[in-house]
Amino acid sequence: MEAGGDFLERLRAATSDAAVVTDPDMMAGHLTDWRHMFTGQALAVLRPGSTQEVSRLVRLCAEANVAIVPQGGNTGLAGGATPQGDMPQVVLSLAGMNNIRLVDPVGLCIEVEAGAILQSVRDAAAAEDRLFPVSLAAEGSASIGGIIATNAGGVNVLRYGMTRDLVLGLEVVLADGTVIDALRPLRKDNAARYWKQLFIGSEGVLGIVTAATLRLVSRPLHRSVSLVSVPNVQTALSVFGRAQTVLGDALTAFELMEAAALERVESHFDLTLPVQAGAWYLLIEAGSTLAGLTETVEAMLEDVFEQGWAADGVVASSGAQAEHLWTLREHITEAEAKSGHSVKHDVSLPIVAFPAFLETFRTRLPDVEAEASSNVFGHLGDGNLHVNVLLPEEAGSTGVMRFVHDLVHAHGGSISAEHGLGQYRVAEWERLTSRAEQMLLRRIKMALDPHGILNPGKGLPIKEHKAT
Amino acid sequence: MEAGGDFLERLRAATSDAAVVTDPDMMAGHLTDWRHMFTGQALAVLRPGSTQEVSRLVRLCAEANVAIVPQGGNTGLAGGATPQGDMPQVVLSLAGMNNIRLVDPVGLCIEVEAGAILQSVRDAAAAEDRLFPVSLAAEGSASIGGIIATNAGGVNVLRYGMTRDLVLGLEVVLADGTVIDALRPLRKDNAARYWKQLFIGSEGVLGIVTAATLRLVSRPLHRSVSLVSVPNVQTALSVFGRAQTVLGDALTAFELMEAAALERVESHFDLTLPVQAGAWYLLIEAGSTLAGLTETVEAMLEDVFEQGWAADGVVASSGAQAEHLWTLREHITEAEAKSGHSVKHDVSLPIVAFPAFLETFRTRLPDVEAEASSNVFGHLGDGNLHVNVLLPEEAGSTGVMRFVHDLVHAHGGSISAEHGLGQYRVAEWERLTSRAEQMLLRRIKMALDPHGILNPGKGLPIKEHKAT
Repeated sequence: MEAGGDFLERLRAATSDAAVVTDPDMMAGHLTDWRHMFTGQALAVLRPGSTQEVSRLVRLCAEANVAIVPQGGNTGLAGGATPQGDMPQVVLSLAGMNNIRLVDPVGLCIEVEAGAILQSVRDAAAAEDRLFPVSLAAEGSASIGGIIATNAGGVNVLRYGMTRDLVLGLEVVLADGTVIDALRPLRKDNAARYWKQLFIGSEGVLGIVTAATLRLVSRPLHRSVSLVSVPNVQTALSVFGRAQTVLGDALTAFELMEAAALERVESHFDLTLPVQAGAWYLLIEAGSTLAGLTETVEAMLEDVFEQGWAADGVVASSGAQAEHLWTLREHITEAEAKSGHSVKHDVSLPIVAFPAFLETFRTRLPDVEAEASSNVFGHLGDGNLHVNVLLPEEAGSTGVMRFVHDLVHAHGGSISAEHGLGQYRVAEWERLTSRAEQMLLRRIKMALDPHGILNPGKGLPIKEHKAT
Repeated sequence: MEAGGDFLERLRAATSDAAVVTDPDMMAGHLTDWRHMFTGQALAVLRPGSTQEVSRLVRLCAEANVAIVPQGGNTGLAGGATPQGDMPQVVLSLAGMNNIRLVDPVGLCIEVEAGAILQSVRDAAAAEDRLFPVSLAAEGSASIGGIIATNAGGVNVLRYGMTRDLVLGLEVVLADGTVIDALRPLRKDNAARYWKQLFIGSEGVLGIVTAATLRLVSRPLHRSVSLVSVPNVQTALSVFGRAQTVLGDALTAFELMEAAALERVESHFDLTLPVQAGAWYLLIEAGSTLAGLTETVEAMLEDVFEQGWAADGVVASSGAQAEHLWTLREHITEAEAKSGHSVKHDVSLPIVAFPAFLETFRTRLPDVEAEASSNVFGHLGDGNLHVNVLLPEEAGSTGVMRFVHDLVHAHGGSISAEHGLGQYRVAEWERLTSRAEQMLLRRIKMALDPHGILNPGKGLPIKEHKAT
């Protein structure tokens, strides 16, 4: 890995000295991903303090043909922020740019720099009695730039959408250092501003997000959480349909968990299910500014029992009970970790395809790996399940992953629901994506980053396809 | 306007004969826009019956270097679907492709062809007890392809977002005839599917939408409509902030109207305001699946009166009263038409900027045109107002438009909130948009349509800028 001899000196001259980090110990944390699946090399870690510094650094990298790996909180689950390959490259950490510039509770928006931590943004909104709805396990470390670059999902997508749905404005630095300011906080802006969307969910391969204006919403004042056991996935869908009709927008979470997943939670932790056993369980949360929520949920569930769709259920009668129900759900991942080697999948499907998909998955899995067992749970309400598989050892993981992805593909789903492709899923994605779609992406890449210096090896077809 | 001599014959051979219309009488309606501002020329109007036919026609046009003007219901307000300029071109009408392929009330989605009429889609959703929320004056004629190409807004944006927020999947034909099927109905799909966004709101200059999968939502079961008079725009914002806190998602419309606009309604129609006069009026609608809505609205308004933010107000106590309140709002455009020549603006602003913007507008307008009077109304809740100006005659229109657009620009707003640029606003947009942003758009255009055959003269910089 080389670049022009005085390259680092030019970077230092363009910024403050402290912005160019070459000490191996200080760099180490930036060169390995959160899950410790990937480690890369870099000439330096750059820590600019302003958009203008980002622009100057990008310009110098472009001149020297040095690639740039944008990095926020480094909490990604697909290796999207870790250097990949042999091209000379630098990590560009946005962590130093973390100002919250403006919170507007009437205009329902917040303007922040890319390095701002998700939790800080949520706190700043809450201080003005508003909610920034993106919420996920890593919110204490994940940065706004990262959640935008990956179009992050999380637990509130059913009600509030993906990150894309909450971005009003962006400031972006292009591959040649050009800064484009499109931060204005407008919900309606059809003045050819569709280009902004290219920088949301493209994992830093088209440009670097340096700041954003995000949409805020009202905070729900009332909340209702319930746990219901159902005999099969088809009846889970019936309950979901009814919940949509009766609760509408108040439905904020609709989680599906298979019995085995919760049995593992009960066996590994001092936790007990408060409902009679079923083959599947639903965790249903509703939230609203309007009163009368619990009564509406109770009436809905009575109807569900009368229809025979559910066997047993409980509506939390206190905040503590609500927390207990969520605790069961939240311990599934840890219980999985204690149960063997797991192959994790982040898939989405048309909701109505879940019964057929899960039945085929259950039936065929033993043929793929005789000793495999499933650990299925996730956000049924937004079509995203974690179809995880436990194995006695790592051998067999690739076969299981291909089996699950092929099945997802056959049922019209996506192999990357909310985590992105990064470097982890890009080969599988390439295997299952049409050549026409890959070529379209490559054309867009060539238009915005013709020399390929932005985040090489991530989120795009690996093979070169000749353009027609 | 010429093309290879047997070009039309090749088109006919590639489709059914009836798909290639050259009769001038049958073509006429396709060559003039809805507002009769623009009329263009075309070699033919093409009416394909399938995506494969679209693909074949596009391929033949590309070979002959004939431009293509995609057209849906031809209800656009900015001339985006009318041929422009001297390049040989055809109108590609999607009207014949209007199947509603699938309605899924549990998976909350609907798959339709581009020519499907918005009203039909709304009806099909309603038949399954669901709502497709895009609603606008032209919904009886506007097509889904058109509302996607223009990222249409309408009256429900405050609550449900723009069309972009409701598109799950797309099928697109590219400028070289390539068909890309990305119709899968997934709310979470981070498998590099951000490219879909380029075809939403780009007014047909990057590709042709042939089908779409749209998101459905639950239908509100309860509704509350109220009319309130307020002394100034600043207090209107205070009421809006309180309504957000108290009603949250249940707030579905928050309209602002100046007194003069409603006085024109009263003087031209047999309609009377049921509240005491104020300088400004608010029309507030709330909707929810949950009960108790009217009580919550009434409590909110009592608080608003106690704070002194509003002078008078009425909450509709019946569906008929609710309709009456909306009738007042809906007659504003017609009353404007009866009051002189009007210069219409479709602008959006950061909501908190409205008081300063409107005060400067009011103060300076007489200096721009001594006999001008204002007719301001619109969707305050989503930042989109129609800042219209009445003049005794057409002379002076250009000066007024530039004055309004300059003022919008100075206050951080957009001169095209929901109607798009088309050919009507492209010059004004070019005047007010940075060179960097225009060059970015041109690069994207070059990547997807290098020969410029898709909808020339619309929605993009007119001048050629040399790429760096």
